[in-house]
Amino acid sequence: MSPGDRLHVVILAGGSGTRFWPLSRAKRPKQFLSLAGKVSLLRATWDRARKLVPVERIWTVAPRALAAAVRRELPELRRDRLVVEPSPRDTAPAIALACSVIARNDPRAIAAIFPSDHVIRDTGAFKRALAVAHRAARGGALVCLGIAPDRAATGFGYLKLGARPRPGIASPVLEFVEKPDAARARRFLRSGRYLWNGGMFVWRIDRFLEELARVAPEVHGATAAVAAGSPGAWRRAPKISLDYAVMEKASRVAVVPVDAGWDDLGSWDAAARHAAPGAAGSGARVMLGSEGAVVFGGKRAVAILDLPGVVVVDTPDALLVVSRASSEKMKSVVEAVRASGRADLL
Amino acid sequence: MSPGDRLHVVILAGGSGTRFWPLSRAKRPKQFLSLAGKVSLLRATWDRARKLVPVERIWTVAPRALAAAVRRELPELRRDRLVVEPSPRDTAPAIALACSVIARNDPRAIAAIFPSDHVIRDTGAFKRALAVAHRAARGGALVCLGIAPDRAATGFGYLKLGARPRPGIASPVLEFVEKPDAARARRFLRSGRYLWNGGMFVWRIDRFLEELARVAPEVHGATAAVAAGSPGAWRRAPKISLDYAVMEKASRVAVVPVDAGWDDLGSWDAAARHAAPGAAGSGARVMLGSEGAVVFGGKRAVAILDLPGVVVVDTPDALLVVSRASSEKMKSVVEAVRASGRADLL
Repeated sequence: MSPGDRLHVVILAGGSGTRFWPLSRAKRPKQFLSLAGKVSLLRATWDRARKLVPVERIWTVAPRALAAAVRRELPELRRDRLVVEPSPRDTAPAIALACSVIARNDPRAIAAIFPSDHVIRDTGAFKRALAVAHRAARGGALVCLGIAPDRAATGFGYLKLGARPRPGIASPVLEFVEKPDAARARRFLRSGRYLWNGGMFVWRIDRFLEELARVAPEVHGATAAVAAGSPGAWRRAPKISLDYAVMEKASRVAVVPVDAGWDDLGSWDAAARHAAPGAAGSGARVMLGSEGAVVFGGKRAVAILDLPGVVVVDTPDALLVVSRASSEKMKSVVEAVRASGRADLL
Repeated sequence: MSPGDRLHVVILAGGSGTRFWPLSRAKRPKQFLSLAGKVSLLRATWDRARKLVPVERIWTVAPRALAAAVRRELPELRRDRLVVEPSPRDTAPAIALACSVIARNDPRAIAAIFPSDHVIRDTGAFKRALAVAHRAARGGALVCLGIAPDRAATGFGYLKLGARPRPGIASPVLEFVEKPDAARARRFLRSGRYLWNGGMFVWRIDRFLEELARVAPEVHGATAAVAAGSPGAWRRAPKISLDYAVMEKASRVAVVPVDAGWDDLGSWDAAARHAAPGAAGSGARVMLGSEGAVVFGGKRAVAILDLPGVVVVDTPDALLVVSRASSEKMKSVVEAVRASGRADLL
């Protein structure tokens, strides 16, 4: 690698969400939870990054409200590598700000952008895909990491390719398709020419900022000004996702398929698939006639009888009991808790 | 009522059981729980007794291990009306001891024996049935209160009558039938000539002790000696139920049907039928798509999603989640808790 294309990692540590209530709360969102192993998802993302680059090339973006929690979770994170969003503005401003800050530090850097609330099981396969993405990025492409769908999911964005993707090859992206309906998702799956958008990106900082200035000048202007020391400019940044603001409009967007046991852990059901069989908490567990039941959190003894696939989430002030099949519907629970006058529990 | 047939009430405050774990524990069995209202089942039994007789004619029998808890729950209970079983020996010795003690106080008393872990909704109907039983007892019968079955339950003993029972009439009992299998229970239900044995009895003390001496002399001898001041004699009392030891063999056994909203509250499902809709605890409750779900205990918020008929029992050190349909199987849960090395939770 020449000095001009050094890889930097940007960890996106923001994001809230209600899908893991009551284990996740406003002040302790999903990425701080140990949903798929002994360490938090954020910590696991850091550990993967450390296998790619030295500490001084790991940047973390977080909204002000989570900055202290991020520092506690990642004590090795260099203070000058924590990029604080003055307020949450979705992914486009967050990523643009981080890239603008890195540009001032290492103008010819290549950046790999990683969400911190996903699971990646196979670090080796992940590194291999990343090497392919790195080469393509060096050539000037804005590279997405794409996940081969194993079901007709309606909760993800899709990337359309010109042909079936081949491992180890970067292919041009023909189209970004936002969350499709079920029939469309089934067509995508059958065609074999669609990948899930994993929200992970690799690009040369200069190429990204060039495209950003062209297709999203207001995001570019605001975040460049914040990076240059004018935090007040942040309020000019629109609240918009990277896909909408940039990726759908940019030139030379490519995708590299990654087959590394990726999971976005979008529900208790998904978390249950990754949890230790039967139990993810620390108390005594008795489960009879309850295949696929999982307990999260809690030091208390929990006994479950004849409720297959039930998820129990045990926290000191709130308890959730939900069937795995319904765990996509957590938003309704959280809204009902709020409506009951107990927003303090959220 | 002449002085020679004054009614005394005997409350049976013993009995353990595992069916309401984890709300019930060895030191706080079912009768101390508020499963069907604001007060404990024991307290509700006391309150019913108080509508029948003055305080000095209410006796309570309890094993030594529960005596202090009984005094706390029933502060009006006269100290000399608490009959302590030196150790649990099932119902025959407990009832025999109480009757022997009463006999020394009021030899011509009539005793009404009430378990303290059942529900009786209609106190008026109960009192009317008791008046009928009282008249029959005065004439020398050992009277059972019988419950008209509304289902082919296999968990109760049955009383066989010569004809369909009539309200307000005491009928001779032809036979005691222990818990029948399902087919037999269905035949009993169809025949209309069987009543459930509610475990409530009314008799003249002298008649009961006469029959006891005849059919269960070892119970009679041991308990009479204890009542006379020789507690060591208790160890000679066999561990045996009243039905086996006395009622199945005694002469002049009669039954009075009682239709007073009786329920033995034998399971979480039964308790759920009597609980306030949706919630019996005090914390916030959010229940979506979960008809018939009930929460017992606990001050925490509880949210339940898409689990109709689930019972959640929330205690500080143990949590139970069970389907109402399976709540007859609590014994297996308690055994599994014990097998897991956590007998301390029982």
